[in-house]
Formats: sequence, C-alpha cells, structure tokens
Amino acid sequence: MIKKNLLIAVAAAWLALAAGAGDAGPPTAPNGIVMVQGYREWQLVAPSFRPDKEHIRVILGNEAAIKACRSGARPFPDGAVFAKIAWKTRKHPEYPDAVIPGPFAQVEFMIKDAGKYKETGGWGFARFVGQELRPYGRDPGFARECFACHEPLAGNDFVFTVLAEVP
Amino acid sequence: MIKKNLLIAVAAAWLALAAGAGDAGPPTAPNGIVMVQGYREWQLVAPSFRPDKEHIRVILGNEAAIKACRSGARPFPDGAVFAKIAWKTRKHPEYPDAVIPGPFAQVEFMIKDAGKYKETGGWGFARFVGQELRPYGRDPGFARECFACHEPLAGNDFVFTVLAEVP
Repeated sequence: MIKKNLLIAVAAAWLALAAGAGDAGPPTAPNGIVMVQGYREWQLVAPSFRPDKEHIRVILGNEAAIKACRSGARPFPDGAVFAKIAWKTRKHPEYPDAVIPGPFAQVEFMIKDAGKYKETGGWGFARFVGQELRPYGRDPGFARECFACHEPLAGNDFVFTVLAEVP
Repeated sequence: MIKKNLLIAVAAAWLALAAGAGDAGPPTAPNGIVMVQGYREWQLVAPSFRPDKEHIRVILGNEAAIKACRSGARPFPDGAVFAKIAWKTRKHPEYPDAVIPGPFAQVEFMIKDAGKYKETGGWGFARFVGQELRPYGRDPGFARECFACHEPLAGNDFVFTVLAEVP
C-alpha cells in the first residue's frame, strides 16, 4: 500500500511538472506581443518621474529606435522598439534627498510595424506588470487605451519621449 | 587705406582663430581628469530624481562598471567608470504629470584607479557644469568635497547607486 501511494505521489509530481512546463513560455500580451528579451541593455532615451504614480522611469530604445531619435527621422522605421521601465520610488537610505528606484513596477513596449499595427499609429503596445510580468489587458482591444493617450503626439510619430541630450 | 584696414581685419580674424584653436582641447578638471567621451551610449545603472536641485538624473556605467554592478564584485576593478548626468526638470508639454529632462545641468564621473586615486577611495572624481562643460573646482583639492559625501558608502566601494533591476 505504501508502495502504491508512493507511485501515485511520484506520478502526481510528474504531472504537475508537465503542466508547469506547458505554462513556461514567456508572458504574452492579449494582442500577441511576447515579452521582449534583452531590453535592459538598450541605450537610454531619457529618464522620467511620475509623482502621480510614485514611479521613477527610464525609456530605453533598441538600435533602430535610438538611431531615429538621433537623426530625427519620422516616422520611426519598422523594427524600432521602445521600452519604458517603471520602478516604485524610494528615498536613498544613505541620502534621503535622492529619489531612486525601489521595487520594479512594470515595463511597457512600443513596437513599430506600420502594416501590422496600422490601427494604432503603426505601433504595437504591450505592458507587463509586477515582478511576475503579468500581461496587461483583457483582450486585444486594450491597445486602444494606450493609443488614446499617445494620439496627441502624432507630430512625433506618437512617441512622448525625446532623446535627453548632452553637450 | 581701405585695403590696409581689410588686411588688418583679416589678420585679426586669423589671430582670433589661432587663439581659439589653442583652447580647443577637451575640458579638464583641476585634478587632470579630462572630459570623458562616448559616455552617453553606456548602459543604464539607474535613474534618480533630486527634488532639492530640481534635477532628473541617470547614472550610466562603462562595461567594467556594469559587469561589476551585475556580479556584485567589490571593490570595482580599475577602469570602471560611472557617469552621472543631470538635467534640469520640466513638465512634459503634452503630459504635465510627467517630469522629464529639460536643459542639461552637469555630468559627473567616478573613475576607478585604486593606485592613482588612493586618497579618495580609489576613485577619481570630476564634474563638468552646464552646456559649456565648465570644470568644477578651483584646485585638485575639490575631490575631497566629492569624497566626503561618498565616504559613508564604503560598504559599496563608495558608490551610491545600485543597479536598477528588472525581472
């Protein structure tokens, strides 16, 4: 009887593992945009601070995005991707005048593909929330909410952030 | 007479050009640290916000600095360099809840050379202010002022900023 229970327990463990493996793909937004890899190494476009959300943020860009930011070419070329990373703010424990990143809050992407995303200015939007990178939105229509906010920026191809320049 | 005045004017212009050319080296701090080139392309360590100075900032690191930030290796190796860029804040003209970079304020560097800078924790400090990158400090002693502020951070090899992480 002990042997049979052991066999059942082992089988159950394997089943759980198999079920887990089935879920192990990267997080995917309701519009099919898969969590982007390697974005943390991209170059800086600019930092920002959102007191209303208690977020400190940076906008990074892949090579195509940064190149277009520098040259001023608009619209951005297909393949340009921006990543906006937000952390909850905290005071530096050794220097409380400085507001610095606390826990990760979310990361948002804008992915340029003029054909594929023509309903939303040629940009695919995605947001992944919290440490578990939970995809934002119930269905593909969530991107209309993103685009509504970006729409007034038509003059900069719907992008809020400009390159923070140095002399 | 007109011809003579013209010759004098041309000669004066050449002298002015020559004098300008003599000054055309990169800005240099009083301790001999020359303005670092190419730092704007380095990877992000973290953003910060300084309400007391009305600055929004990012700290970037060269390859050696970023590698040590990731691994946690301390002290930082010789050759590690951090750049802290500060811009005056402004509200985004299309989205006033967002505080974003306005005019460039200054850039500061920490350059690791344990032997050369042993008086200041193995770090060479430099600050270049404003659009003209005016070197900060009257004499090499200015670095003691920088170090006084960083000294409590001995546990992190005198560096305030830690890598802002993402999941």
